[in-house]
Amino acid sequence: MIIVLKMGATAEQIEEVSTRLTEEGFKVHLSEGVEKTIVGAVGDRTRIKALDLEALPWVEKVVPILAPYKLVSREFHPKDSIIRIGDHEIGGDKVHMMAGPCAVESREQIIETAHAVREAGATFLRGGAFKPRTSPYSFQGLEEEGLRYLADARTETGLLVVTEVIDARDVSLVAHYSDILQIGARNMQNFILLKEVAKCGKPVLLKRGPSATLEEWMMAAEYIMDGGNYQVMFCERGIRTFESYTRNTLDLTMVPALHTLSHLPVIVDPSHGTGRWQLVHPMAKAALAAGADGLIVEVHPQPEKAVSDGKQSLTPEKFKLMMDDLAGLSKALGRSLGEVSL
Amino acid sequence: MIIVLKMGATAEQIEEVSTRLTEEGFKVHLSEGVEKTIVGAVGDRTRIKALDLEALPWVEKVVPILAPYKLVSREFHPKDSIIRIGDHEIGGDKVHMMAGPCAVESREQIIETAHAVREAGATFLRGGAFKPRTSPYSFQGLEEEGLRYLADARTETGLLVVTEVIDARDVSLVAHYSDILQIGARNMQNFILLKEVAKCGKPVLLKRGPSATLEEWMMAAEYIMDGGNYQVMFCERGIRTFESYTRNTLDLTMVPALHTLSHLPVIVDPSHGTGRWQLVHPMAKAALAAGADGLIVEVHPQPEKAVSDGKQSLTPEKFKLMMDDLAGLSKALGRSLGEVSL
Amino acid sequence: MIIVLKMGATAEQIEEVSTRLTEEGFKVHLSEGVEKTIVGAVGDRTRIKALDLEALPWVEKVVPILAPYKLVSREFHPKDSIIRIGDHEIGGDKVHMMAGPCAVESREQIIETAHAVREAGATFLRGGAFKPRTSPYSFQGLEEEGLRYLADARTETGLLVVTEVIDARDVSLVAHYSDILQIGARNMQNFILLKEVAKCGKPVLLKRGPSATLEEWMMAAEYIMDGGNYQVMFCERGIRTFESYTRNTLDLTMVPALHTLSHLPVIVDPSHGTGRWQLVHPMAKAALAAGADGLIVEVHPQPEKAVSDGKQSLTPEKFKLMMDDLAGLSKALGRSLGEVSL
Amino acid sequence: MIIVLKMGATAEQIEEVSTRLTEEGFKVHLSEGVEKTIVGAVGDRTRIKALDLEALPWVEKVVPILAPYKLVSREFHPKDSIIRIGDHEIGGDKVHMMAGPCAVESREQIIETAHAVREAGATFLRGGAFKPRTSPYSFQGLEEEGLRYLADARTETGLLVVTEVIDARDVSLVAHYSDILQIGARNMQNFILLKEVAKCGKPVLLKRGPSATLEEWMMAAEYIMDGGNYQVMFCERGIRTFESYTRNTLDLTMVPALHTLSHLPVIVDPSHGTGRWQLVHPMAKAALAAGADGLIVEVHPQPEKAVSDGKQSLTPEKFKLMMDDLAGLSKALGRSLGEVSL
Repeated sequence: MIIVLKMGATAEQIEEVSTRLTEEGFKVHLSEGVEKTIVGAVGDRTRIKALDLEALPWVEKVVPILAPYKLVSREFHPKDSIIRIGDHEIGGDKVHMMAGPCAVESREQIIETAHAVREAGATFLRGGAFKPRTSPYSFQGLEEEGLRYLADARTETGLLVVTEVIDARDVSLVAHYSDILQIGARNMQNFILLKEVAKCGKPVLLKRGPSATLEEWMMAAEYIMDGGNYQVMFCERGIRTFESYTRNTLDLTMVPALHTLSHLPVIVDPSHGTGRWQLVHPMAKAALAAGADGLIVEVHPQPEKAVSDGKQSLTPEKFKLMMDDLAGLSKALGRSLGEVSL
Repeated sequence: MIIVLKMGATAEQIEEVSTRLTEEGFKVHLSEGVEKTIVGAVGDRTRIKALDLEALPWVEKVVPILAPYKLVSREFHPKDSIIRIGDHEIGGDKVHMMAGPCAVESREQIIETAHAVREAGATFLRGGAFKPRTSPYSFQGLEEEGLRYLADARTETGLLVVTEVIDARDVSLVAHYSDILQIGARNMQNFILLKEVAKCGKPVLLKRGPSATLEEWMMAAEYIMDGGNYQVMFCERGIRTFESYTRNTLDLTMVPALHTLSHLPVIVDPSHGTGRWQLVHPMAKAALAAGADGLIVEVHPQPEKAVSDGKQSLTPEKFKLMMDDLAGLSKALGRSLGEVSL
Repeated sequence: MIIVLKMGATAEQIEEVSTRLTEEGFKVHLSEGVEKTIVGAVGDRTRIKALDLEALPWVEKVVPILAPYKLVSREFHPKDSIIRIGDHEIGGDKVHMMAGPCAVESREQIIETAHAVREAGATFLRGGAFKPRTSPYSFQGLEEEGLRYLADARTETGLLVVTEVIDARDVSLVAHYSDILQIGARNMQNFILLKEVAKCGKPVLLKRGPSATLEEWMMAAEYIMDGGNYQVMFCERGIRTFESYTRNTLDLTMVPALHTLSHLPVIVDPSHGTGRWQLVHPMAKAALAAGADGLIVEVHPQPEKAVSDGKQSLTPEKFKLMMDDLAGLSKALGRSLGEVSL
Repeated sequence: MIIVLKMGATAEQIEEVSTRLTEEGFKVHLSEGVEKTIVGAVGDRTRIKALDLEALPWVEKVVPILAPYKLVSREFHPKDSIIRIGDHEIGGDKVHMMAGPCAVESREQIIETAHAVREAGATFLRGGAFKPRTSPYSFQGLEEEGLRYLADARTETGLLVVTEVIDARDVSLVAHYSDILQIGARNMQNFILLKEVAKCGKPVLLKRGPSATLEEWMMAAEYIMDGGNYQVMFCERGIRTFESYTRNTLDLTMVPALHTLSHLPVIVDPSHGTGRWQLVHPMAKAALAAGADGLIVEVHPQPEKAVSDGKQSLTPEKFKLMMDDLAGLSKALGRSLGEVSL
């Protein structure tokens, strides 16, 4: 940490900064320039924020040198983390496709979709039983009934299930029925929920908040790892910008950025990331080329009758076409698509 | 609702759109232009989103005409809503000042601060007992102990208490000790929490999410009102933009915008909105001039020793100076500061 | 400047950094931490960017300590700069109102508007003769004819004229007819144009680019001052964010921020900043309370017939009401509105 | 165009809207709902903006149905536009690589770089002779001398030259020495410059402004086409968001979005788009997979000695590695890299 003092800081003021740092166990180096004095401090990165030195009137700014995260960083774990779920490994050579409707609407709908995406090559079934909806008047999900249908679809198809949990009180219920718990974008900084999924024993798919920085996103993963759950995957799903043609701005650069800074796998959601089904196929290819370890895509048998997100859902036919394309592309990239072994 | 069809939409396709709308109880008007056909639909505004017509391949776009919110809108309740809390009214002529530290750190700290802000003219004491922190390694709050200290400070000073609730399971606990429940920015779309505070019987201060649009913010308030709690106040606290000199970009235009579209009171938080104590005083004045019904400001007896947000906290002395200024300004604006009647 | 080296940087690599800095005239301080080595460098702030040290593979990051601007900074000129134009002073106790239509449409229109805003208390007449329009099919302005009408309006009313210049080749023409040259938001980083207005001898109103940071904005002013023209005013007119209810997000915090960092006056444009005439009046008041040295506001005799920006233009009647309000408010703030002395 | 009137609009007010539209040559359809009256208008899309109907107090909003651009739209020109430059075609099966330093620094530097990128497979040489720099104290380019060096490098290597023009007065000079004129991001809405390059007879590479919407970007291209120059290429180079790990947020979704809405080729700049050379290689692959017709990449023989943008420049060795990778990937995508025929 570097502390830059304002011009004219007195010897007493410099001393006070040093003393505080020393008391917190930091080693201190002073560097006096012509215009400004600079204090360097070396110590426990996780205690930096506690020292709110910028509140001192004679401190101009505090520049952190070490990142505030630890367990999620590649320095902590230099090799790629591979997350094993059933027979599958996420984060290795295989690229996994997670597909299904935005919301579970009925038993028939989810089982029909599961068969379709299974045949096209998906290894995971997605579908929301609890829906965080902007409007209180929108469909809020089938809740536990929806979870049962997802579990039925798993039994019938061999697909594993990824589904969202939105209430800390439902974590064990959702963990009971599913294979991966999804933390939705709007809950990325719901620390209560993060602490709860940290204890659930199941892998977590952590979506990026619509205005979350890379560092905040990594800190949210740090919450889950600090709570004891090391099976965390990041999921880029677009951020909010001024561009309104797309629903969000899919920030694919986060894929190589996360692979540089962290050891955890990275999944991409081109459906929410673009908001238009026409753009899903090209952006799925781009995500693979950027190095994504998997994709999560919305597929609905009749998008125009979907209770939500129909505009960004692929039909099973379009999904199949895309999968054929992705299978070829993944080979060219030195990887291959994951497969369901029955 | 206006549905614009793509060029070349067939009679059958136009018919299908009409049929669906009619089935949902909408009245339909067709308008065929030279290049495009346009369908107008009149009906229940709260059912618009359920009809995901943009998923139809021959639909170019759907343009909502009516806003999706109802209870929060001024059309629903043309007069200003006034929220009565103890002897105070928020939303009327009086401008209320809520002040206190970011976090309750000790009994002494909160009581000392309460006396100081009380003397300077505040009517509400703020202070966090449950802290949503970006890092799992940061101080997470004194929890129930902190709530008790806040209640003690209320007894000693007559100030009413506003404090944040972050866990749906703690809503009745927090409601027991406080007078206003605050929903923090990161929880604005935590719908589980919104539904819970809708049942608590206490007024709610709803902070704007860092990347929430005006409409999403109003929809979050709609959740609380739809759940039966009409005592909702908006709190503008800045949005996330590319500008990094300030912690957030305080969007003061939301004050008159909300007063136009809604009947609910609007509070402004210049501390989080700017992130620098030097900017709090001028922006507090600007907020009042924009029509704010109250301010919520961070005050700490020793900002440089605060466990959080010291950089944006005023000392009691600076807060006093600001209050003197605001008292004069509010008169010039035809209002006056709220007062504690002991 | 602080240079943080990556873990494992060798003695040779540290030496290379030091040598380069020394060669550029910087004084160097080394500080070796347990994990990282840090190099402090003191020298000419304007040569920092030239040394692209982050391109060295063993450099983790470079943290500038001193701001890159000099002439615009308050450190360079501790007292407020006051810009004298005719009998007026901008940046002192008087708050100046600049008002008029978006575009000069005809001689009658501009003279009628000039009389109206003059009577209401404005001291400057605004109006565009050269219009930067998003669409090539929109009205592009009356050009020199428009400038002549503005000059006529000045003769008739005594108002001084502020108008935009968009082409470096037109700077002397525009300077001939007007009293303040406006650099529009989209031209804030048109460095060719900045260098040209630096030579024109007339004061410059420098609008903030829609996605410009505070630092970039100050650097644009630095271009003008470095070119020899010290008569620069900043004009905040809103930035582009995800919020779409307003045309831009008016970032009023820039007013006290600029007053802290710079000595130059700050004007606010609530018309472009909000995009809705209903919001202009409250935000004009907020701007004054935040410390603005003047306002620039769109007024049109028949906004619904304006060739541009009618949606955000006040009628002369509404402008008059606002001016009465602002006159009272400015007194409460210890200032007063500028006046035309005839 | 759809005009939504406010509740309670009178028959006279409805009539006035109709009359104005009719006078401008629009055909009008009225649709009266229970709460609101809606007016549909069919006519010349390029005259819509001129009618500023939102300024009428009884108009709630105006919703454009047709896009404001015409010549750039795929409806106007359904087949992909192919731009022929020398022996090359941009917009067809070949993917073209444009590479070189940010700035031309010396004859040796640009010729050395040209040979290196030529050998690695680039077909175009990039390099700035006129540099738009944020700071007046930064290197501003070698100007005409730099253009001559670029032309020399072309003669020696057979690479064609793409270089930026920043001053309308220099357009013919730059056109004389180069094969593609680049409009930089900060000049995307410098309409004076757009009108000038419209007359230059050379192809134009139009970079996206850092806060430009897709529609504004297409309108900037419309300026150039409307001025008579149909050889326009879009270049995505990232937008400004709150994310600060990357220099910009590379918005790759614009590639398929532009290919849907327009017939013009799309180039991607992963160097400015990410700001870090480590991220250039993966994002170049992603850009190709998203369908880019070419890439423009910064390469410098000694990035750590570059006068600008060293942090995001590849060495010739790293560029060669990337090119080998891209050659394979482009085949898997059914395309191939362009080649210099000597």
